[in-house]
Amino acid sequence: MVFEKLTVLGAGSWGTALAQAFSKNFSQITLWGRDERTINEINSIKKNSKYLPDITLSENIRGCTDINEAVKDCDILIVAVPTQSVREVLKKIKYDISIPVISASKGIEINTLKLISDIIKEVLGIQDDLIFALSGPSFAKEVALGLPTAVTLAGNIKIGEKLQEKLNTETFRLYITEDIIGAEIGGAVKNVIAIATGASDGLGLGNNARASLITRGLYEMTKVAKAFGGKPETLYGLAGLGDLVLTATGELSRNRRFGILLGKGYSVEEALKEVGQVVEGVKTVEALKKIQEKFGIELPISEVVYQVVYEGLSPKEAVRILMSRQPKKEGF
Amino acid sequence: MVFEKLTVLGAGSWGTALAQAFSKNFSQITLWGRDERTINEINSIKKNSKYLPDITLSENIRGCTDINEAVKDCDILIVAVPTQSVREVLKKIKYDISIPVISASKGIEINTLKLISDIIKEVLGIQDDLIFALSGPSFAKEVALGLPTAVTLAGNIKIGEKLQEKLNTETFRLYITEDIIGAEIGGAVKNVIAIATGASDGLGLGNNARASLITRGLYEMTKVAKAFGGKPETLYGLAGLGDLVLTATGELSRNRRFGILLGKGYSVEEALKEVGQVVEGVKTVEALKKIQEKFGIELPISEVVYQVVYEGLSPKEAVRILMSRQPKKEGF
Repeated sequence: MVFEKLTVLGAGSWGTALAQAFSKNFSQITLWGRDERTINEINSIKKNSKYLPDITLSENIRGCTDINEAVKDCDILIVAVPTQSVREVLKKIKYDISIPVISASKGIEINTLKLISDIIKEVLGIQDDLIFALSGPSFAKEVALGLPTAVTLAGNIKIGEKLQEKLNTETFRLYITEDIIGAEIGGAVKNVIAIATGASDGLGLGNNARASLITRGLYEMTKVAKAFGGKPETLYGLAGLGDLVLTATGELSRNRRFGILLGKGYSVEEALKEVGQVVEGVKTVEALKKIQEKFGIELPISEVVYQVVYEGLSPKEAVRILMSRQPKKEGF
Repeated sequence: MVFEKLTVLGAGSWGTALAQAFSKNFSQITLWGRDERTINEINSIKKNSKYLPDITLSENIRGCTDINEAVKDCDILIVAVPTQSVREVLKKIKYDISIPVISASKGIEINTLKLISDIIKEVLGIQDDLIFALSGPSFAKEVALGLPTAVTLAGNIKIGEKLQEKLNTETFRLYITEDIIGAEIGGAVKNVIAIATGASDGLGLGNNARASLITRGLYEMTKVAKAFGGKPETLYGLAGLGDLVLTATGELSRNRRFGILLGKGYSVEEALKEVGQVVEGVKTVEALKKIQEKFGIELPISEVVYQVVYEGLSPKEAVRILMSRQPKKEGF
């Protein structure tokens, strides 16, 4: 396999940051987005002022609104569109794809409870060992600025090592694991826990409460991973714990900001409007509601987040429910 | 067992906060400290202005500078003195102790590599099932203010449940585990990782870098726990991950503040002076240096923290070492 051309689907903050991070390693990078204004701006002044206003993009990043033109002749495809749009976007591709496809989206498709890797397989019909998930603690802005970042690349080890060799930069480093399910579940579920910890902070409950929620939240993530056939160990790594800590404590996270606003008394609609970008956890928690029923597992934090977002439970009452239900022994 | 009188050894911020948290559950609490001025202040105006200036202590907390008077007739003893003083303080006790003794100190004795529970056993000569460790994400100030906090109480389950029943309050909740070694290692080693993440923040490396360090740091904590005979699972709970996240991200942590100052270019002496209280991690990392040699395990983060604190390595160079040494695969 020779990797010369990289295409990134999704010109939001994450897709744009990945294009920028990898721009040193490829002669040309194509960044596909559906918004003509954004793509024109990328091509004319090397800016994406909506999503990464502080960054000047590399000269070799080319914006494109035609997805078939974007994927034609590329050697690696990165998918970084909002989870609930992945299927629809990929369906537009007319070419047969037989190159590595890396999912950088984080979520679970609500209607089907499918992971992004499942959707890629289903829609593009490519073989398992070409499907990867990239996940880990990685705020887009910091990645675009070249601050040190380490993420998990999950999938086939042999092809993964080749991708790693091509993609690694001095400041953006990929570590390989085989457990694609664990990595994807980590990236998805952490957004829901981040809403919960945000709400706790918005209520002013303090650092102790937040740290407990993160701890119990990670446990909840391992439960979901196990239900899907993933490995709990993966969740203790960059794609689980690492990403959870980042999202639940860093000021740049949308899911966290959304939670903080709820804790401060904003309605769901007001909080979503204030954040102004896709809040993946709001969708993922819907999927987790179904997952609890389908697999017969209890996810107490996700459950109260669901009730706050969709059933009008107050964040204060949610905390009371969580505090009162905990068992005597610390279980794993 | 009837628990009516509680004595806390150590009138620093943590001992004082614990006395305050438990004050609703006991008719009388004795708080022992060696500093006469602090003890007089506690008895006269119910304040500990050096360590918890914002808190007014409960009326039933009695300060005491005579350790034998303090422990005489008490039913539960909590040890909350700096790790390296535990042995010396306990040696002053002349009475035979046959009540539950709970260690709330976090560290490893440098000279002997012993845990606090080992020291308690050795010096007081009490039976194993009466020795407990209390550990978890718990900033003293938040505990004293009555903000919600959950911690691990590690030790004999049967007696632990009785202690739990007596000690639990609405906002300060104890969860039982049997693995006292894991709980103690978590509380001790997390301080060293917090110095590392503080230094990363002081250098301005961003949230992504911090989250990676926390992830690899937790892995390092499980390695030490295993070497001592503890269980890795304990480290994924409140006493490990929970406490680590708190200490490595919360602004109230001394170890973190010390690390931030190092990252900003302060010398070790200047940073210690600026923090002005015991920075347990500075001692613990000395113990971890010996532990690496004794058990033949590699603790890369602890190793560079040791070199920064004791051998003049610059924090910037320490980060470079960590970034360059990491393996291809994410290992556990």
